[in-house]
Amino acid sequence: MRKFFTSLSLADIGNTNAKIWRDGKLEIVSLSDFSAEKIREQIFYISVNPKFAKVLNSLQNWIDIESFAEIDTNYKTLGADRKLAIFGLENGILIDMGSAVTIDIMKNGKHLGGYILFGKSYLIQSFKEKIPHLNFGKNQLSDEVVPQNSEDALLSGFYHQLVSFLRDLEKKHKLKLFFTGGDSLDMLQYFPKAKFNKNIIFENMIKIVEQNY
Amino acid sequence: MRKFFTSLSLADIGNTNAKIWRDGKLEIVSLSDFSAEKIREQIFYISVNPKFAKVLNSLQNWIDIESFAEIDTNYKTLGADRKLAIFGLENGILIDMGSAVTIDIMKNGKHLGGYILFGKSYLIQSFKEKIPHLNFGKNQLSDEVVPQNSEDALLSGFYHQLVSFLRDLEKKHKLKLFFTGGDSLDMLQYFPKAKFNKNIIFENMIKIVEQNY
Repeated sequence: MRKFFTSLSLADIGNTNAKIWRDGKLEIVSLSDFSAEKIREQIFYISVNPKFAKVLNSLQNWIDIESFAEIDTNYKTLGADRKLAIFGLENGILIDMGSAVTIDIMKNGKHLGGYILFGKSYLIQSFKEKIPHLNFGKNQLSDEVVPQNSEDALLSGFYHQLVSFLRDLEKKHKLKLFFTGGDSLDMLQYFPKAKFNKNIIFENMIKIVEQNY
Repeated sequence: MRKFFTSLSLADIGNTNAKIWRDGKLEIVSLSDFSAEKIREQIFYISVNPKFAKVLNSLQNWIDIESFAEIDTNYKTLGADRKLAIFGLENGILIDMGSAVTIDIMKNGKHLGGYILFGKSYLIQSFKEKIPHLNFGKNQLSDEVVPQNSEDALLSGFYHQLVSFLRDLEKKHKLKLFFTGGDSLDMLQYFPKAKFNKNIIFENMIKIVEQNY
């Protein structure tokens, strides 16, 4: 029997953060500060984090809905967040720009495969650890300008390499681009026809919960 | 007065390794195992590593030749290795694929600027640290194939994003590609007209030493 959810709690557990969604309000908690036991209400979740699997499985109010996002794919180890992001997408290239950048290609309802790239925050953090004297710039350059210092060289390298790659994928597969994830906004200037939906994973989770519970 | 060098020692000090060149023989030593004091002969060097600057400056047999590689550029903080790699290049895009990937653009003897990207070994190491359950694949895929698992998704993402970017730069600036650095060989299948020279930095260092000492 289908319930009407007056209140809905959702969680997307990643490798860096736990994102908790309560009726349209999003809370992002670093995994090191996150304890699943503290959430007492019924909460529907997906997780790409194997470390949390045992804890979450043992909690009765935590309900894993990954299996409802059935994707027609030959891809092994497609993360739950990627499944939820492309759930229901017939045609398009979905780019999730979080701490990693994942790219998934959907054609006629079939998942053709995808790519995983380093995200901006990973890059910044890793460069800081490995080359402490090199800084990441703050200003994103136009792709007409060749960077004139190492800070810009890093940031421009990140953005314009991705722009080139996405343009090639767009052309090759003749598909529209769909962006989600925090670092997407900077990309939209290069792809004015692309769609951006910050909450696509949670919106698809809500669909699944409403259809199945 | 110009000497004839019957024997020549060179060093390229990076952020990860020290590369020691003795008459065509290359020895690569991890920086953690490297002590400059142990080298007793006269050695000409470049270094991008500010941590080593004091030690190297204090050693009389270590001779910094970076200042001889004069480059016409507005780029601030151009690393000594990048200067030596493009030294004498009139027209071309030089890609040095080491632990970082640096891209430098030379047009009519003028350095137009450049980019810095994460190298393959940094990517592998950083992914291992941050997402221990994700592995890097070993097999490089054709750019006609969309990866079907996360290992390939990482490696293909690294290579094909770079291929797209370099093709765009090649087209935009109408310049030939020149590769150096350990991970270059994998790229040559995509750029059959590109030139590859493993030892370009040392060859240019030799030129400088022969012209100036």
